[in-house]
Amino acid sequence: MAPNENLTAVLYGIEDLRLENQSIPEINDDQVLLEIDCVGICGSDVHYLVHGRIGDFIVKKPMIIGHEASGIVAKLGKNVSTLKVGDRVAIEPGVSCRLCEFCKGGKYNLCPEMAFCATPPFDGNLRRFYAHAADFCFKLPDHVTMEEGALLEPLSVGVHACRRADVTLGDQLLILGAGPIGLVTLIIAKEMGATKVIVTDLIQGRLDVAKELGADYTLLITKEDSEETLVKKVHALLEGDAPNKTVDCSGAEATIRLGLMATKSGGVLVIVGCGSPEVKLPLIGALTREVDIRGVFRYANDYSAALAMVSSGKAAVKRLVTHHFDISETSDAFEASRNGTDGAIKVMIHCQPRNKNNLKPF
Amino acid sequence: MAPNENLTAVLYGIEDLRLENQSIPEINDDQVLLEIDCVGICGSDVHYLVHGRIGDFIVKKPMIIGHEASGIVAKLGKNVSTLKVGDRVAIEPGVSCRLCEFCKGGKYNLCPEMAFCATPPFDGNLRRFYAHAADFCFKLPDHVTMEEGALLEPLSVGVHACRRADVTLGDQLLILGAGPIGLVTLIIAKEMGATKVIVTDLIQGRLDVAKELGADYTLLITKEDSEETLVKKVHALLEGDAPNKTVDCSGAEATIRLGLMATKSGGVLVIVGCGSPEVKLPLIGALTREVDIRGVFRYANDYSAALAMVSSGKAAVKRLVTHHFDISETSDAFEASRNGTDGAIKVMIHCQPRNKNNLKPF
Amino acid sequence: MAPNENLTAVLYGIEDLRLENQSIPEINDDQVLLEIDCVGICGSDVHYLVHGRIGDFIVKKPMIIGHEASGIVAKLGKNVSTLKVGDRVAIEPGVSCRLCEFCKGGKYNLCPEMAFCATPPFDGNLRRFYAHAADFCFKLPDHVTMEEGALLEPLSVGVHACRRADVTLGDQLLILGAGPIGLVTLIIAKEMGATKVIVTDLIQGRLDVAKELGADYTLLITKEDSEETLVKKVHALLEGDAPNKTVDCSGAEATIRLGLMATKSGGVLVIVGCGSPEVKLPLIGALTREVDIRGVFRYANDYSAALAMVSSGKAAVKRLVTHHFDISETSDAFEASRNGTDGAIKVMIHCQPRNKNNLKPF
Amino acid sequence: MAPNENLTAVLYGIEDLRLENQSIPEINDDQVLLEIDCVGICGSDVHYLVHGRIGDFIVKKPMIIGHEASGIVAKLGKNVSTLKVGDRVAIEPGVSCRLCEFCKGGKYNLCPEMAFCATPPFDGNLRRFYAHAADFCFKLPDHVTMEEGALLEPLSVGVHACRRADVTLGDQLLILGAGPIGLVTLIIAKEMGATKVIVTDLIQGRLDVAKELGADYTLLITKEDSEETLVKKVHALLEGDAPNKTVDCSGAEATIRLGLMATKSGGVLVIVGCGSPEVKLPLIGALTREVDIRGVFRYANDYSAALAMVSSGKAAVKRLVTHHFDISETSDAFEASRNGTDGAIKVMIHCQPRNKNNLKPF
Repeated sequence: MAPNENLTAVLYGIEDLRLENQSIPEINDDQVLLEIDCVGICGSDVHYLVHGRIGDFIVKKPMIIGHEASGIVAKLGKNVSTLKVGDRVAIEPGVSCRLCEFCKGGKYNLCPEMAFCATPPFDGNLRRFYAHAADFCFKLPDHVTMEEGALLEPLSVGVHACRRADVTLGDQLLILGAGPIGLVTLIIAKEMGATKVIVTDLIQGRLDVAKELGADYTLLITKEDSEETLVKKVHALLEGDAPNKTVDCSGAEATIRLGLMATKSGGVLVIVGCGSPEVKLPLIGALTREVDIRGVFRYANDYSAALAMVSSGKAAVKRLVTHHFDISETSDAFEASRNGTDGAIKVMIHCQPRNKNNLKPF
Repeated sequence: MAPNENLTAVLYGIEDLRLENQSIPEINDDQVLLEIDCVGICGSDVHYLVHGRIGDFIVKKPMIIGHEASGIVAKLGKNVSTLKVGDRVAIEPGVSCRLCEFCKGGKYNLCPEMAFCATPPFDGNLRRFYAHAADFCFKLPDHVTMEEGALLEPLSVGVHACRRADVTLGDQLLILGAGPIGLVTLIIAKEMGATKVIVTDLIQGRLDVAKELGADYTLLITKEDSEETLVKKVHALLEGDAPNKTVDCSGAEATIRLGLMATKSGGVLVIVGCGSPEVKLPLIGALTREVDIRGVFRYANDYSAALAMVSSGKAAVKRLVTHHFDISETSDAFEASRNGTDGAIKVMIHCQPRNKNNLKPF
Repeated sequence: MAPNENLTAVLYGIEDLRLENQSIPEINDDQVLLEIDCVGICGSDVHYLVHGRIGDFIVKKPMIIGHEASGIVAKLGKNVSTLKVGDRVAIEPGVSCRLCEFCKGGKYNLCPEMAFCATPPFDGNLRRFYAHAADFCFKLPDHVTMEEGALLEPLSVGVHACRRADVTLGDQLLILGAGPIGLVTLIIAKEMGATKVIVTDLIQGRLDVAKELGADYTLLITKEDSEETLVKKVHALLEGDAPNKTVDCSGAEATIRLGLMATKSGGVLVIVGCGSPEVKLPLIGALTREVDIRGVFRYANDYSAALAMVSSGKAAVKRLVTHHFDISETSDAFEASRNGTDGAIKVMIHCQPRNKNNLKPF
Repeated sequence: MAPNENLTAVLYGIEDLRLENQSIPEINDDQVLLEIDCVGICGSDVHYLVHGRIGDFIVKKPMIIGHEASGIVAKLGKNVSTLKVGDRVAIEPGVSCRLCEFCKGGKYNLCPEMAFCATPPFDGNLRRFYAHAADFCFKLPDHVTMEEGALLEPLSVGVHACRRADVTLGDQLLILGAGPIGLVTLIIAKEMGATKVIVTDLIQGRLDVAKELGADYTLLITKEDSEETLVKKVHALLEGDAPNKTVDCSGAEATIRLGLMATKSGGVLVIVGCGSPEVKLPLIGALTREVDIRGVFRYANDYSAALAMVSSGKAAVKRLVTHHFDISETSDAFEASRNGTDGAIKVMIHCQPRNKNNLKPF
């Protein structure tokens, strides 16, 4: 093995992320070996770096980080017939057991045996070479860039959130939070026919990006606003009507409360964000208006729609990427991401020279 | 007007329920005049008597009480062609505007203009004569008793709750609370194909009735049980599995919490009960398992299914009625209901001699 | 009444359409009087003119024609509070009974008592003054033209068709027929997230318009093509995949057969068109692949989404209107429509001077 | 290998079914070896015997027959942890690829790589020893007999048909055909809350069984009845109403036509039966009433509900079995089944002594 042939980003513990050279993984009959092209940094990656855990998922032994990736097929397992060496693919990073009732019933994201990249105890894919189940790789059309392939991961969360919200033609949608998940939800919701989308945030710069990406209205929230005031402001933007769907991409108690109060009777509140384990809520007021509350756990059967969106040019995800780093600069990349340096939204780490595998530069 | 010809139960304020003779109401072209046969007492009736309000619905002026009623058609509005004088009918007690998006969209229970019996400022139907929209009257087959007709009201709440929970074949259902709503939910759930139904309560006597009505398992809850213990007990009854649907018929913070924790991933928690306006909940744990949370507000398009159930003999609601009173004894009836005297479940008030309008005695 | 004050287009029988002055209609308490602005001609209008019937709907007495209209509120019934005199409105032309199970259940298009404009025995609205139920009038925002208001009628058929097809993100859609209904279905499907839409027709000129309106692929069908060839051509456009949804906007036996054969397993075939009462079909082949077959009857609860689409600028319906006539030229308008003169798609008849009621010219 | 140790029923071609001793199959890591207890004969088995094919599935080489089976786990593949040797299991006879969009999306019955017992080119399980994927084996509770386990196969078709029909509380259901599939559909529909079920057939004896199994009404169809007469008779049984769901378990052109005409507007016609490839239908009349048409292909995720039904005592499938034979009498068993000898409904072939593996005799 050449030095750095399989450079790999390993999280050893809190604030202890190291680059090291590892051996190239073996593949089983149903897998492909992938030469990773690029990997986006997700809030959860940063969270593991800073806290060493997310809820009950605890980093107990060194774990390779990264799960928003695309790559080039380098080797095929002997059962693999749907891909060929050289194929450019996006990687759906969770591989489920295929045997349980959730897997058979179409909700494989709830599979208790799910092996998901960079969720302890499973390794991620921020490395030069990585083995993955072939059926969870999605071949990219020639005109789609590797970066867009990596971005299918957060985009699929947006797809899943909007599907869980049953977003459809003529919807008036409230999106709480303009971080990466709020923005992909916005992009997808507009493509599913939502006609009026309001995006809220505490930071004006993020709202500006939302506006750029198609938000019909943005609402800057300040700590001084009372709940009643915020509800009124939301309804005022809709000329007195209420949003029939709300997607909370923050998970804070305050935004969940706002969602419960602002959403129209008979509507849906989807909660993507993952905040405090215990929250105090005015639940009954929403339930007696039959506002349904639904959670989002990753995605299932959403990658192909996300790819179709990007491929057709409908989902302009490129705007999300604000920073680029080489894998050798992983530490700087995480710094930029955690500090939001220069309005960082999505930070992309390249395991290959930029645009090496793109027909047109990203 | 003969004395007491239209004896009427009027709530003047807290603890101030009076019987008085009122004039017989006029009907409009789309209404029928009904000679009321019997009226069940609901928890909400008692709540208005004791507290003078439920949430934002406040008894500000004298209000006729009662909304679980059946009657005989005494007069027809000139547009009414679907009923005839003498018809025995169950009364769906809420009349919606028919014009708004909720009415047109099939969710008329959410109509903001809903006029619902004995919900301020609208009068109820605990009286001898009452005028009602003909299309919200359901003709009873000859073999169905007037008492069963009145019981369609709570039964429809059970139908709506089970429909909101998407109860279906092979479901394992947890019902929290064995009061009247818990029991009608149990009856309906079994008829929709639930194979294992667990009912919980704090009172053993209520669980005994649940068992009688078809509960597969009952679980007596004591204040000493920790949440973890209760979850384990529920799962143990299902041999380690979790209920895929839960219907909370209590509305207490404690039962909502239990529902969130005990329900299977990908399942549904329906909350019928109406407790404290603010509750502290372990929400995220349930949402990341994609347990959906849904409220129930009365019912919409559920009366005909409830009637079909009773008419076919599938829904044995008779067991729910534990006490009978004449309208002249209304005060005693409310006492029995509020105190749960002698295991009172449903107390029935008769505005006509018992069984006068029944082919077979109830 | 001034001469021609209420000029009205009355169909007396086959090929006997007359203009005459009628008295201005009275309104009831729930209606508004409308000064009609413009009315589009629909294929069904032409069908009544040429054949005097559509299926069991037979023109037995003189009937006012027209049902795709917009107008200005001229007078209010006393119960009407949602509109005011001068409001510019689109008219949903069918008024249902509001009492039956279909109306209450959200499927009012199936109401057996439906009174629908220009469907015998009910009069239409191609006239200067027309009375209509206020709740079936949709106020147009200032920037929406009266012509767009009239076009909400066919657009709502497209909305209903796409909703019946469950069109959603990433769908590959086959639309059979590029007439007005095929085109509105195309417009809506793209807005609901369909990424690849194929439109077929026998006439290249119509396919050119489809292309202009966003079709990803068009397929000219010739009488020589065998069914197998056509299926192969459709699948070839999708790189070997099959459309997961198909909307047949023709209703011919040949297109229904193609839809059954070309649609993906587990997909949906929606049939909007209304052709021969009896058809010979390879049904089992589609059913054993669980391709669902669904019909479309007008629309229900679709007008507001159609309006939201037009108002947001998402639905470019303007391109559909190829011809304009004054109501005094009604006869010429019908000629243009029935002959497809100069590539006629939608012919608009104006009961008011053009653009009189528009902020910006159409 | 002892003589007849793995006695096996092999279909060599039309009317050429032979018993022969085969070697005991090897299992892979995810399979179990099963000692088969009993196997029901299905209409499709008889069809292959008589015609050598069903549609495009052609018996081109010797094929082991049988797919409605239960057995005892005799050996475990090394990955199998959910079963143990000695477990009594029902066998879901189709094993899908687990990789394609249908498998991942919850519709594995549509998987193009499905390997289904006794569907060419895949062998069935009418033999003493059989290897099967462990996750498609369903452990039977002690009180459920092996025969009931085998009957889960046709029962699951009934479950899938009723789920496709969205059978629910208060439904009025028309079942066309009282063969085994009609009867399991009847059993399941009643358990899902259908209150009025009409079953039709050409043979009174079959209707008598339907009545025994819970049909509310039966209707004997004679060749003389016109379509209009039959529709009227169906509606008359429902006092002028129409069935809102129809399940055609015959697949004949005549019954599909009846289903289209008799089903209520907005209802559903499910077609299970598999008749002529081309049928002539009054399609438009049903589609303009928005009667949805849905096919049924086997089942997916239905076995556990079928088992829950049997286990809870709700589905009385025992009545379906009219004949018993030993595997050595396979030829006689097929004779009884194809001729309907003595009112044969379901013929059961035993590969083990009867009741050897039952706690209580079947």
